[in-house]
Amino acid sequence: MAELNINIKDTILNLLENKKYSSIKDIFATMNPSDIASIFDEFSEQQLPIVFRLLPKELAADAFAEMEAETQEHLIHGFSDKELKQVIDELYVDDAVELVEEMPANVVRRILSQADADMRRDINLILKYPEDSAGSIMTTEYVSLRPAMTVSESISHIRATGVDKETIYTCYVTSNRKLMGLVSVKDLLLAKDNSTKVSEIMEENVISVDTHTDQEEVAKMFSKYNFMAIPVVDSEKRMVGIITFDDVMDVMEEETTEDLAILSGQTPTDKPYLKSNPFELFIHRIPWLMILMVSSTFTGIIINHFETALAANVILTAFIPMLMGTGGNSGSQASVTVIRALSLGEIEFSDLPKVIFKEFATSVLCALALGLVCFGKLMLLDRLLLNNPELTLEISITVSLALSVTVIVAKIIGATLPIFAEKLKLDPAVIASPFLTTCVDALCLLVYFGVATALLF
Amino acid sequence: MAELNINIKDTILNLLENKKYSSIKDIFATMNPSDIASIFDEFSEQQLPIVFRLLPKELAADAFAEMEAETQEHLIHGFSDKELKQVIDELYVDDAVELVEEMPANVVRRILSQADADMRRDINLILKYPEDSAGSIMTTEYVSLRPAMTVSESISHIRATGVDKETIYTCYVTSNRKLMGLVSVKDLLLAKDNSTKVSEIMEENVISVDTHTDQEEVAKMFSKYNFMAIPVVDSEKRMVGIITFDDVMDVMEEETTEDLAILSGQTPTDKPYLKSNPFELFIHRIPWLMILMVSSTFTGIIINHFETALAANVILTAFIPMLMGTGGNSGSQASVTVIRALSLGEIEFSDLPKVIFKEFATSVLCALALGLVCFGKLMLLDRLLLNNPELTLEISITVSLALSVTVIVAKIIGATLPIFAEKLKLDPAVIASPFLTTCVDALCLLVYFGVATALLF
Repeated sequence: MAELNINIKDTILNLLENKKYSSIKDIFATMNPSDIASIFDEFSEQQLPIVFRLLPKELAADAFAEMEAETQEHLIHGFSDKELKQVIDELYVDDAVELVEEMPANVVRRILSQADADMRRDINLILKYPEDSAGSIMTTEYVSLRPAMTVSESISHIRATGVDKETIYTCYVTSNRKLMGLVSVKDLLLAKDNSTKVSEIMEENVISVDTHTDQEEVAKMFSKYNFMAIPVVDSEKRMVGIITFDDVMDVMEEETTEDLAILSGQTPTDKPYLKSNPFELFIHRIPWLMILMVSSTFTGIIINHFETALAANVILTAFIPMLMGTGGNSGSQASVTVIRALSLGEIEFSDLPKVIFKEFATSVLCALALGLVCFGKLMLLDRLLLNNPELTLEISITVSLALSVTVIVAKIIGATLPIFAEKLKLDPAVIASPFLTTCVDALCLLVYFGVATALLF
Repeated sequence: MAELNINIKDTILNLLENKKYSSIKDIFATMNPSDIASIFDEFSEQQLPIVFRLLPKELAADAFAEMEAETQEHLIHGFSDKELKQVIDELYVDDAVELVEEMPANVVRRILSQADADMRRDINLILKYPEDSAGSIMTTEYVSLRPAMTVSESISHIRATGVDKETIYTCYVTSNRKLMGLVSVKDLLLAKDNSTKVSEIMEENVISVDTHTDQEEVAKMFSKYNFMAIPVVDSEKRMVGIITFDDVMDVMEEETTEDLAILSGQTPTDKPYLKSNPFELFIHRIPWLMILMVSSTFTGIIINHFETALAANVILTAFIPMLMGTGGNSGSQASVTVIRALSLGEIEFSDLPKVIFKEFATSVLCALALGLVCFGKLMLLDRLLLNNPELTLEISITVSLALSVTVIVAKIIGATLPIFAEKLKLDPAVIASPFLTTCVDALCLLVYFGVATALLF
C-alpha cells in the first residue's frame, strides 16, 4: 500500500479559503482533541479564532486544553468575553490551572474574571501548592459519596453529577470531608443487591498522598499499584482532590526528560527543544561545561608533575585519551545503572555492600578482558600501525595494567557515589556525573603514572 | 512525629511462628496486592505455600501476579493441582502470559494443563506475537457490545460479564468481530434515555493499534491521547484485544531503563540490578567498552603523529584531557537533547536545518564563554598554580582557541548524528554515543595540533 501524504491541515486551509465552513466542521467531528490541537498550533493568529468557532462544542474545550501556550494566548486574545467564559467553564480544573500558570498576568486576570466562583476558588487552591507537588497537579473534580448511600443512590448520584468530573470510575467515600474509603463504578455495577450500603462494599484501606508529596513519588506509586486515580489529602487527612493516571503519564514523561538532561550535564527545562532559543539552551548547558573545564585543572597539574617522565617517553601520552575514555565509560555504566536502580526503588543504602561486591566482581571481569585485549592489540596491532620502536613490552604492560586498575576503580566509584548522594538527600544524578568524571580522570592518571614510574624508571 | 520502623514482614513471621494464622489473615486483608507481593518475595521456599493459604481469596491471584518470577516458581512447586488451577483461573490473561514467559518448560506444562480451554487458547494467541509488540502485551479480556444493544441492555451485559474483564470502563462495539466504535461506561451511565441504541452514542472514530505495533509507539499514543485503554486489531481490522494504561506505565518505565542503559553504553536488560549476577553485568557492559577502547587507536595514531611537536612542548599534553573532556560533554549535551526530542516526536528529519542553526548559535555562545574563561584561567590561575615558564601567551591562545572550535564542532556533530541515525531507521541512542565519542575525540586532537602547529612552530 503506497503511503498517502496529504496533510489534513492543508486541506482545512484550502476549505477555509473557499469558505467551506460546514465541511471543516465535519472533518473536525471525526478528529480527536489532541490531533485538533496539533493542527491549531500551526494556524496563524488571524486564522485561529475563525477555525475555533468551527469546532463541535463538545470538542472545543478539550482541544483547547491540549494546545500549546502560545496558541492558547492568541486564541484568548481573539475571544469575546462570552466565548472565553464558555471555554473556561468546560475546562477541567487541572487544565485551567495549567493555563493560568502559563499565561501572562493580564490574560490571567481576564481568565479569572470569566471563571465562575467555584472554579476560581479551586484554581486558587491548587495554585498555592509548590511546583511539582501532588497538590499542584491534582484536580478538585471527583465523585464523592456518603457511607450511608446505597448502591442505587450512588449510581443516581454519579448520573446527576458525573458529567463534570475528571473520572467517575473511582468514587471516594467521605464523612465530614475525611476520606473513609473508595468504591469503584465496577463494584457498584456488579453489586448483587442495589440496596447494599456503600460503607459495606467500600475498600477501607485506601492509599492516599499528601498535598506536598513530590510528583515523582506519586508516579512511582501509580506504577507500583496500577491505580487509575489516587486521592490527595491535606495535613488533617481531609480529602482535597485526586490525581488521575493520565496526568501521571505526563509526569513520567517529564521526569524522564529531566533525568536525561541532568545525566548529560544540563539543567532541566520544561520547554520543548524547538521552542528554546539558543540563549536559553546556552544558559542550561554552560554551568556544567564551565565547572568541568575548570575542574580539569587537576588533571593538568598531575600531567605537569610527571612532565619529565613524559618527555622521556612521549609515547605514554598517546594512551592517555584511551585510558581516560575507558575509565569514564566504565564509571558511567556503573553509575547510570545504580542511579536508575535507586530511582526505581530497587536498591537502598543498606544494599551498599552487595553493590560493591557486584561491581567489584563485574569490574574484575571487565578489567581482565580489556587488559588482555589491550595488551594483545598493543603488541600486535599498534606496533605495526604506529610502527614505533618505543612501544616496548614494558610500555605495553604499563598501559594494560593501568587500564585494568582504572576500570576497577571507576566502576566502584561510579556505583557507590550515587548511593552516598542519595543517603545525603542529594539528587544522585546531579552529584554523580561531575564528581565521577573528575575523580576517575585524576585517579586514572595517578594510576598510569604510578605504574609507569614503577615499571619504567 | 517520630518514624515508627517496625517491619510488617517481621511481625508476620513472628505470628507465623506462634501459629496465629487468623491474625495474619486479618493483616493481609488490610493490605494491597503489590505490598503483599513485596513481602512474599522475602519468604523462604518452605514458608511460601503456608502463608499463601492465609491470603484472602480475592487478593490471592492479584498478589500472585505481582510477585517476582522466582517466588512464583517456588509457590507453584508447593501448590496442589487444585490450588494451581484456582490461581490460574483468577489471573488476567496478560498476567498469565507473563507468567508462562518466565517459567521453565516443565512448570509451563503444568500451568497450561491446569488452565481452562479459553485461557489456554488466549495464552497461545498472545505468545505468538513478537516481543515488545502490541500483541504481546495486550489482554483478550475486554467488554464487547453489539451496535443494536440499548443502553440498558449494555449495562446488563457489563453486569453479567464484567467481573473477569481487565477494564469495564471502555466497551468496544463490534460487528462480525470488526471494531465499529467505542462507548464508555460514563456515556452509558449518563445517557438520558435507557433505550438509546449503542450505535447512536458510540464514538466511531476509534484510534486503534495493530498487533505488530511497537510497544513504545503504543506508549506514545497513550500519553498523547490520554487513553484509558486502546483496542488492538489484526491485519483484517478485526478486534483481538486491548492494552490498558497500567501496562503502558510499565512499558514507559521499561523503555526509560532501556534508554538509560543504551546511552551509558550498555546492552539493555529487563533484569533488576540486584538480581543480575556479575557475569551477566559483564556481558551487558563489555561490548561497548571493548569497541571504544579499540577505536581509540585513532587518537593514539594522531598523538603519535605529532610526537615531535609534543616532545618540544610537553606542556601541551597537560591540556589534552581538558579539551577532550569538554568536547565530549558539549557533544553529549546536544546529542542527548536531540535524542529525547526525537523520541518525544518533537523533531523530525525536516527540522535538520533548524537544529543545525540552533546548535551553531548555542555552541558559539558556549565557545565564547568557555574560551574566554579558559584563557583567563590559563594566564592567571594556571601560571601561578603550575608555575610553569612554558605556559606562554601563545600556548594559552592555542589551548583556548582549540577549546572553542572543539565545542562548536562537538555540538553540531552531537545534534546531527542522531537525526541521521533516525533517518536511516537506526536507534539514535545506540549509534550516536560511540560514533560521537570517536569523532569528537579525533577531531578535537586534530584541531588542537592544527592550531598548535600554526601558532607555535
